[in-house]
Amino acid sequence: MYSGEIGKKLKELGINPGDKIKVEYDNVEIEGELMPKTEFGSPDTIIVKLKNGYNVGIGFKNSRITKVSSGKGIPEFPKASMKPDPKLPKVSLIYTGGTIGSKIDYKTGGVEESKMSPEELLYIVPELSKIARIVIRNPFSIPSEEMSHSEWKTIANEVAKELNDGARGVVVTMGTDTMHYLSSALSFMLNNLNAPVVVTGAQRSSDRGSSDAFVNLICSVQIAAKSNIAEVGVCMHATSSDDQCHFIKGTKVRKMHSSRRDAFRPINDRAIAHVTKEGEIKYAENYSKISSKKTKLSAKTDFDSKIAIVKVFPGSDPTILDFYIDKGYDGFIIEATGLGHVPTNPSKKEYSWIPSIKKAIAKGAIVGITTQTLYGRVNPNVYTNLRIVSGTGAIYCEDMLPETAFVKLGWLLANYDKKKAKELLNKNLAGEINERINYDEFLL
Amino acid sequence: MYSGEIGKKLKELGINPGDKIKVEYDNVEIEGELMPKTEFGSPDTIIVKLKNGYNVGIGFKNSRITKVSSGKGIPEFPKASMKPDPKLPKVSLIYTGGTIGSKIDYKTGGVEESKMSPEELLYIVPELSKIARIVIRNPFSIPSEEMSHSEWKTIANEVAKELNDGARGVVVTMGTDTMHYLSSALSFMLNNLNAPVVVTGAQRSSDRGSSDAFVNLICSVQIAAKSNIAEVGVCMHATSSDDQCHFIKGTKVRKMHSSRRDAFRPINDRAIAHVTKEGEIKYAENYSKISSKKTKLSAKTDFDSKIAIVKVFPGSDPTILDFYIDKGYDGFIIEATGLGHVPTNPSKKEYSWIPSIKKAIAKGAIVGITTQTLYGRVNPNVYTNLRIVSGTGAIYCEDMLPETAFVKLGWLLANYDKKKAKELLNKNLAGEINERINYDEFLL
Repeated sequence: MYSGEIGKKLKELGINPGDKIKVEYDNVEIEGELMPKTEFGSPDTIIVKLKNGYNVGIGFKNSRITKVSSGKGIPEFPKASMKPDPKLPKVSLIYTGGTIGSKIDYKTGGVEESKMSPEELLYIVPELSKIARIVIRNPFSIPSEEMSHSEWKTIANEVAKELNDGARGVVVTMGTDTMHYLSSALSFMLNNLNAPVVVTGAQRSSDRGSSDAFVNLICSVQIAAKSNIAEVGVCMHATSSDDQCHFIKGTKVRKMHSSRRDAFRPINDRAIAHVTKEGEIKYAENYSKISSKKTKLSAKTDFDSKIAIVKVFPGSDPTILDFYIDKGYDGFIIEATGLGHVPTNPSKKEYSWIPSIKKAIAKGAIVGITTQTLYGRVNPNVYTNLRIVSGTGAIYCEDMLPETAFVKLGWLLANYDKKKAKELLNKNLAGEINERINYDEFLL
Repeated sequence: MYSGEIGKKLKELGINPGDKIKVEYDNVEIEGELMPKTEFGSPDTIIVKLKNGYNVGIGFKNSRITKVSSGKGIPEFPKASMKPDPKLPKVSLIYTGGTIGSKIDYKTGGVEESKMSPEELLYIVPELSKIARIVIRNPFSIPSEEMSHSEWKTIANEVAKELNDGARGVVVTMGTDTMHYLSSALSFMLNNLNAPVVVTGAQRSSDRGSSDAFVNLICSVQIAAKSNIAEVGVCMHATSSDDQCHFIKGTKVRKMHSSRRDAFRPINDRAIAHVTKEGEIKYAENYSKISSKKTKLSAKTDFDSKIAIVKVFPGSDPTILDFYIDKGYDGFIIEATGLGHVPTNPSKKEYSWIPSIKKAIAKGAIVGITTQTLYGRVNPNVYTNLRIVSGTGAIYCEDMLPETAFVKLGWLLANYDKKKAKELLNKNLAGEINERINYDEFLL
């Protein structure tokens, strides 16, 4: 039961577990049933069961608690959910921080970041333990804006280890900001993948009624435990309503909104699958399926971090490439305009990118051309000026996203010799290039 | 009539004006009626009237021409359309090159770039002269990827001159790649605007059946000649079908696809109007309307070009800001992740952007924060790490597009003192900031 200050306050208000209460803090108002204290809850947090069935932990400080109505005593504690069912498939959950973590942190008190025990997670999202035997790993906890290649390597190795150790699938949770970079990195790093690898997170705090954390987590575990997909992908809300998620190929997904729950969209592609909380999975036509052959998964995690994304804009200074070259950079992904244009006019010398691109290539760098429109394909054959750019030896990267091309380039440079890396940049390796973009695959 | 090589070839094939012919070149196949030669046509071009009523010029060389069927002799020459109707409103068309121009160039032979006479244009798109008295200006002709602030200034001054000289509205044609930068620049540069200023272009060659040049041009002239809109906007295909265009606020529009005709989309906004070729205009609720007061339009065209867009990505080197500062730059628009994140971790020194941002601001630069998700809003108040970024003095630019913020910053720095410029960066001046993004304004 609640003790200390919380216990005292609840006693004053005449509130007992099972009562319906209202909690207000900041601009949030939550109504639900007061749940009993658990042994792993933080001392300044109360647990409230929402109407939708989720238990959320709410910090006691700065909250205004009022009693709405008396309950019928202590609600049943979901003990059954705490014990892993040996008949269920094993799913490893690699937890790395981010919003989904910061909320769960909030529940556990918010002080010790992301040190969540499996019991806590299963208590907060009891549905998970009915879908799979969840094993939780926590290699580190950082916000996604701080994550880069060294964390991608660690995660790729963890995923390989878990799958080789018998997990049916893996769910990786992280902050959403750079999620599509991680999903691209895992797509290239994990060879011979024969299981679903699901990257997920949350756009909204789980202490808000509008949180997407629970549904994203449940749908992701459903994909990991039940789907026949042998691909890396992102599983997040498909629409703003809470009824289903989509699973999008890791190399064809991008965060397209700063705050919406349905921010992750397929670009020049469609989702591989749609999945409900209940585990109903609707598949698209083409994707890699789990095969019966048993293979050991090997992670190829080397990465050359001396690469940069460079955006071209009106009046942009092309000597930015020289700046990087002087620092020993090995490659660039240029976010060009339209079909892959950069200024090429020799009579507007300070603006033409051709001398700097030529110089970078002469120094051994690989230069890839993508488009800042994001949707669509680059094509060096339409206009004369485009042929000038491709004539430098820059590689036109088809319909690849700039972010995916960036990750691919760093991975290629570390795993192949330069000639081969250049050759592979615009060849499809992990679904990052579609030969054909379907008509409806715009703003999907 | 056709002479020289073309005349000879047509005679050989037994083809006369009025006959139905098929022309094949590259992968294009065009069927239509052979039109008579005009005095301004190039010597190696034939004019073909397509089924949809448009006349296109096709280069004779490398084309395979076959006769489909005999016609009834020379079709009527659209002479009526050549004379401006004094009762129609005057619309000035400022023509600056780009795909819409390269096609029309193609028609005139492709050698002398973009030197199009009004007669030629009206011959190719005869509908225009039924909508307005078209006056054509051609300050320069360059591909849009070469265009930057000096051309924006020239165009803004031309627009002001034409409107002050009695034009009811102005249409600016250009290449599409940097069209949204120009439309932003005109939005800030043209004060006291009391007329429609329409920026348009073409995504597809007008010698393809799928060209959008004609419909975009006609719809743009309809907006300029008939609408009550007193704003700068982009008028391009609303969907992939050829039935209507949308007119999107110049500061809220972005090219979102490299090749589709409906590539230009409103971001965090909806279109101001939808317009058909026939001139039917459906307006949205909120926009600036033409008022009855007569004011002289003054263009404020000063622009500080020492500014850059800088994208943050995993492992990105923040000393890129130092590179620009050493070159005397006055401001930056950072394309941050999500709600406006950049790496801030002091223990990962080489990745943290905070020291470089602080240094830039200490040197007097203005730093604006936008989001690379494009859709949505930045908000420095959600996470602790965001408060660290805004604590440096960086300005969170609300729901402004990175490209719009870039143009705005260059314009502010040249027209206001630094304090005022900083203050105005995230205040709405030209529709670039919406207080509220409506629920359906995502992937519109």
